[in-house]
Formats: sequence, C-alpha cells, structure tokens
Amino acid sequence: MSKQEQAALVIIGDEVLSGKTKDANLSFIATELNNLGIIMSEARVIPDTEKVIIETINQLRSKYEYVFTTGGIGPTHDDITSASVAKAFQTELELNQEALSKIASYGNELTAARKKMAYIPKGAELLENPVSFAPGFKLENVFVLAGIPKIAECMFYSALRFINKGSPILSLAKDFYMKEGDFAETLTKIAKEEKNISIGSYPFSKNGKYGATIVLRGTDSTVLERCLQKITEAFQSIITD
Amino acid sequence: MSKQEQAALVIIGDEVLSGKTKDANLSFIATELNNLGIIMSEARVIPDTEKVIIETINQLRSKYEYVFTTGGIGPTHDDITSASVAKAFQTELELNQEALSKIASYGNELTAARKKMAYIPKGAELLENPVSFAPGFKLENVFVLAGIPKIAECMFYSALRFINKGSPILSLAKDFYMKEGDFAETLTKIAKEEKNISIGSYPFSKNGKYGATIVLRGTDSTVLERCLQKITEAFQSIITD
Repeated sequence: MSKQEQAALVIIGDEVLSGKTKDANLSFIATELNNLGIIMSEARVIPDTEKVIIETINQLRSKYEYVFTTGGIGPTHDDITSASVAKAFQTELELNQEALSKIASYGNELTAARKKMAYIPKGAELLENPVSFAPGFKLENVFVLAGIPKIAECMFYSALRFINKGSPILSLAKDFYMKEGDFAETLTKIAKEEKNISIGSYPFSKNGKYGATIVLRGTDSTVLERCLQKITEAFQSIITD
Repeated sequence: MSKQEQAALVIIGDEVLSGKTKDANLSFIATELNNLGIIMSEARVIPDTEKVIIETINQLRSKYEYVFTTGGIGPTHDDITSASVAKAFQTELELNQEALSKIASYGNELTAARKKMAYIPKGAELLENPVSFAPGFKLENVFVLAGIPKIAECMFYSALRFINKGSPILSLAKDFYMKEGDFAETLTKIAKEEKNISIGSYPFSKNGKYGATIVLRGTDSTVLERCLQKITEAFQSIITD
C-alpha cells in the first residue's frame, strides 16, 4: 500500500483495565480513520495515572501524525487527562472562556467541579460536544475526547476539520466455509504475489459450521476485486481436488 | 492498596486496528486477573508486524510479572505471533511433538499449514485448547493465547496453574441519579481521605436520566462498605441542601 498517515489511540481509564467497562471507542475511531485513509497503527489502554499519561502522549505524538485520547475529561477527581496533557506539552491549563460559556449554557449550576472542565491547555482548540456541552480539545496533533461513546463520536467528528484525508482504504471481504488449515498454503502463495494488498484470514464458527472470512484491504478497488476472484478460484480448486 | 502483581495484555491483530473486529478478550482477561488479585496495568493493540511484536513483548515482559498476548497463532500467513515471540526470546521454533499429536487428534488432514501450529518456541509449556486442539503456550512470563474469544478463555484457564494468587481486589458499586458536576467536590474530598481505596466515578444515561456509578476498589470489604456508606450520606446532604 502507498504511504498513509498514521494515528494512535490512547484509551485512558482504570475502569477499562479492571474489566468493569468495555471500551467501545476503538472500533468506532479505527473504522472512521480507515475510511479517511488513515491507518491506526496502535492503541493503548492506560490507567488514570499522570506519569503514565504524560509518557504515553509524548511517546506517541512524536511517532504518529495523529494521536487520539479518550476518557478522563469529566468533573471528578479521577479526571486528570487535561492536566496531564498540558504537562506533556510543558504548558498550563487556563480557564477557557469559550468552554466556560458552553458549559454554563447547559443550564446546570456552575459548581467548581463543572468549572474544572473549562480549564483547557493554553493554545488548544475546542472540539464540540453537543451532548453535554463540556468540550474536548486539540493541542497540536493530539485530540482529547471524552470516554462516553456518544460524546467521543461527536468530538471525533468535530476533529475532522483538522485531519488530512488520504486515499480511503477500501476493503472487500468474503466468507469461505473452509478450514484455514486446508487453504492456508494457497492463501500464503497469493499473499506473496499481491504486494499492494493486505490479506487477512479470520476464522469463525457460525451455526456450528466452521469457516473463515478473507479480508482484502487496499486503495484500488479493481485490484481488490481481481484478487478476490483469484482467491475464490484458487480455493475452489482445493475443494474439487 | 497493598503491592499487587501486575500484568499487561498485548492484542495482536490488524483486524482490531482496522475496526473490522471488536476485541472481546480485554474485558474477560482484565476481570479474571482482577479476581485473582492481579492488576492489569496496561493493554496494547498492535499490528501483525514482526518488529512491533518483538519490541512490545520485550518491553513489557521486563516490566510486568505477567504478559498475555492474544491473536496470531493460527495456520495462515498472517499468523506470526509464535515466530515473533521466539525471536523476542532469542530462541527458535521447534516442532513440538505433544502439540502435533493434539492437532492430529482433531481428525483433520495434517496439512503443512496445520503442522505450522505445532511449531512452538523451545522451552515453552503448552496451554490447552479443548475447542480446536492447536495449543497456546507459556514461555517464561509470557502467555500466548489465541484471538478467538472462546479459545482464548480456555487457554487463559489453562494458564492459571502458573499464576500466583494475590489478595483478590474487591469492588463495590452504587448508582447515584445525580450529576457529576454536583457531587464531584464532595467525592474528591472523600477520595483524599480514603487512601486505601480506589474510587471511580462513571457517568451514565439510563432511560433519559443522568447519573453516575461510583465504584470503590480495595482488598478489605469492611473498609469498602464503610466508605460507600460515607459517600451515600455525604451525597444525601448535597441533595437536601
């Protein structure tokens, strides 16, 4: 595949690492980035620990074009993402008047805890939250989103204006009711021939029948279709052998 | 909390990073480890790329007591976890006769692709797979499991004989139909007082009503119950103010 921009996701939250909460943001963000032609190169789940957040952000923001974080920007004591991101950039939080007026407009009493959500790193641009108004933000190439999926999704869409669109990565998939052990050698041979396509095999069991989904990924739909046809024919010759 | 053993999880698979497949192993393994008194300190999702797998395994196995991996141990060309783990340990794959006889006993033709799954790093101990017989393995403190959840779960249980049990981490949770912005200051004060308890607040929206689940985690159930009572009383005084 041609050179694509790369992104990483940092899922921040003790609740995900303890198994209490299942993350739902990875598959959403991965799918959306994929449609934009951006590869998600890695994702990390880390605890609500300042030192770990700072180290992870600094490691990833120098390595990838885009870094997304989810979680830890609410009003409670365990919400330390904004402060940690500010420290990673060696800057400070400041009361962001635009964020404050958004939060105030939601109609709740403006407690110190709600006001805390308006403290945003200096120089950051806000990401809209039409659900509960307290915004996320973008600082350089780091996009700080909420952990609640429907809010994270809105903030992600608000972040799109800062993102370059590459060639969308297309995919084609087909289920074969064959066992991987029977077709693996044939598939390996084709994968070696087709350098511009990424080929994956994902075994499944549906209604007691075993099979595998073959997924082809690349930027040229014609090439993908030709390759799927080639795989289908090669697999048929295994069956009829 | 007292000193607990720590673990990391490495989810290996392009299909998770592209959004095609939703990981289901993190929450299972995190919950099981938590019940054993072992903290999951981080999880990473990485691609099927040899260099990345080697670097990640080597970084994490020196940092944590246990490292679990999922994915990439099947028969196809994109299943490179076993070979990569062997390289991380600077050892080699060898044909493991016990693994081979398990795979053969499943009744399928013993193709080269199926035989590939019997190549296990030298010195590794096998982890049982009663579902489809091709085993996982343990090499020092690294546990290599399949990606398919029901197989990963069996292999995890097979790994338990190698794992020390600590003090189980207990948790207590209670839903409060209050807004985080209203109780956050009260909760912060209590969190500072209760050094032996980890307190988390996770906002939710159920049937149009907003609230938050307060989760207390620690190793002493009496302390947890006393603390939850304290929080409940403190929150009631907010309501009646």
